[in-house]
Amino acid sequence: MTVTLITGGARSGKSVLAESRALAAEGRPTYIATATAGDTEMAERIARHRARRDDRWRDIEAPLDLVQVLDATDGTGARLVDCLTLWLTNLMFTPGRDWRAEAGALCAALPRQQSPVILVTNEVGMGIVPDNALAREFRDAAGTLNQSVAAIADDVILAVSGLPLKVK
Amino acid sequence: MTVTLITGGARSGKSVLAESRALAAEGRPTYIATATAGDTEMAERIARHRARRDDRWRDIEAPLDLVQVLDATDGTGARLVDCLTLWLTNLMFTPGRDWRAEAGALCAALPRQQSPVILVTNEVGMGIVPDNALAREFRDAAGTLNQSVAAIADDVILAVSGLPLKVK
Amino acid sequence: MTVTLITGGARSGKSVLAESRALAAEGRPTYIATATAGDTEMAERIARHRARRDDRWRDIEAPLDLVQVLDATDGTGARLVDCLTLWLTNLMFTPGRDWRAEAGALCAALPRQQSPVILVTNEVGMGIVPDNALAREFRDAAGTLNQSVAAIADDVILAVSGLPLKVK
Repeated sequence: MTVTLITGGARSGKSVLAESRALAAEGRPTYIATATAGDTEMAERIARHRARRDDRWRDIEAPLDLVQVLDATDGTGARLVDCLTLWLTNLMFTPGRDWRAEAGALCAALPRQQSPVILVTNEVGMGIVPDNALAREFRDAAGTLNQSVAAIADDVILAVSGLPLKVK
Repeated sequence: MTVTLITGGARSGKSVLAESRALAAEGRPTYIATATAGDTEMAERIARHRARRDDRWRDIEAPLDLVQVLDATDGTGARLVDCLTLWLTNLMFTPGRDWRAEAGALCAALPRQQSPVILVTNEVGMGIVPDNALAREFRDAAGTLNQSVAAIADDVILAVSGLPLKVK
Repeated sequence: MTVTLITGGARSGKSVLAESRALAAEGRPTYIATATAGDTEMAERIARHRARRDDRWRDIEAPLDLVQVLDATDGTGARLVDCLTLWLTNLMFTPGRDWRAEAGALCAALPRQQSPVILVTNEVGMGIVPDNALAREFRDAAGTLNQSVAAIADDVILAVSGLPLKVK
């Protein structure tokens, strides 16, 4: 198995870099979307990403149950998870879910995957400290999750202006 | 021709890195400012940048018509464009201008330049998602423009604490 | 002497990278905290950082007088300064202190240190331009300070998802 983490800022070309890696792997790639089309902006973004992909891809939505979907799709081809930051947001805003426990379960599940996993995430901590406590809590959680996954990933890439900068 | 894109955060030393590259090229360098001295802060910043340069430089303002200025100054020496993010802002806030079309025109104009072009831009997408829709639209546009220019640039550099990190 | 600057976003693993470097040096490491436990969030963060370290460390608080503490602890082992951004904040908000003069004094003091110094700082300039003038002033000051220290540092590292990216 190979686990790749692709991080970067907004509109830095992370998804395109991730898609080309998933397509280069053996088997039929699976696109695991953690987004839900809850508002207009997000619905447009999802439609734009989907239009770029084609029917080589299988699409699965996993706003919360990412680990189950990874286990269920193992052995079929590469899985592209887009993205960890939205998955974290979903977990944090769903009563009864514990993002720390789920992050731990993800980090336990990744090493047992036979087929490649490419995870897209976001850099959200390089701006000025946010005014509100919830935003600070979120960016701390996002940083913690990114560190945990990066520690077990085989490759870590920072996307800058659409280009890959190798971190690990 | 050589096209260099220098990106980085606020006060990361992008302009100084760009200036040294422009001065190292043959001929008299041209400083193409996209800023307009519309408010006090910007006027001070322009004055500070100008004080650092000397009369080796030719100064031209191009808040909107960047492509025409690039074509008109070709063959005289390196051109330093400072910066793409302000140019994008100007285009987005000027009625009748279409930033996507202008970005396309810039990307068509760059490969035909005989003299070097060094373009400074900004990383604006690595903080928490902004509250307001206009800021989100702007950072998406900035990321898209950066990706387009980076794709055709010969060199792409990320400035970190005044130091150059080679991306391409 | 060796001066190392470790920069990165919030929760990017800067402190852990800095701690392992300090522990690898000869002698007993000193942890120089620039934070003051002024509010609950900060008190929790300080407690968490302290819990991770053990009694191999000597702890000193230096919210303002960083240069004096560096000079006074020289020759005992590595000094970890955590972090420059909070030191800058403290200087900017303390009447009668001039952060530019103090930054100059720090840059003059670093080269005379016999024992290693590892300085942690923050990337705060890669988000959207902040609305309020004070936040813009702060991020400009932080960028200027980072550039000054990076210019004299032997090693500069950008922490990304807990991993070190060598800048210098």
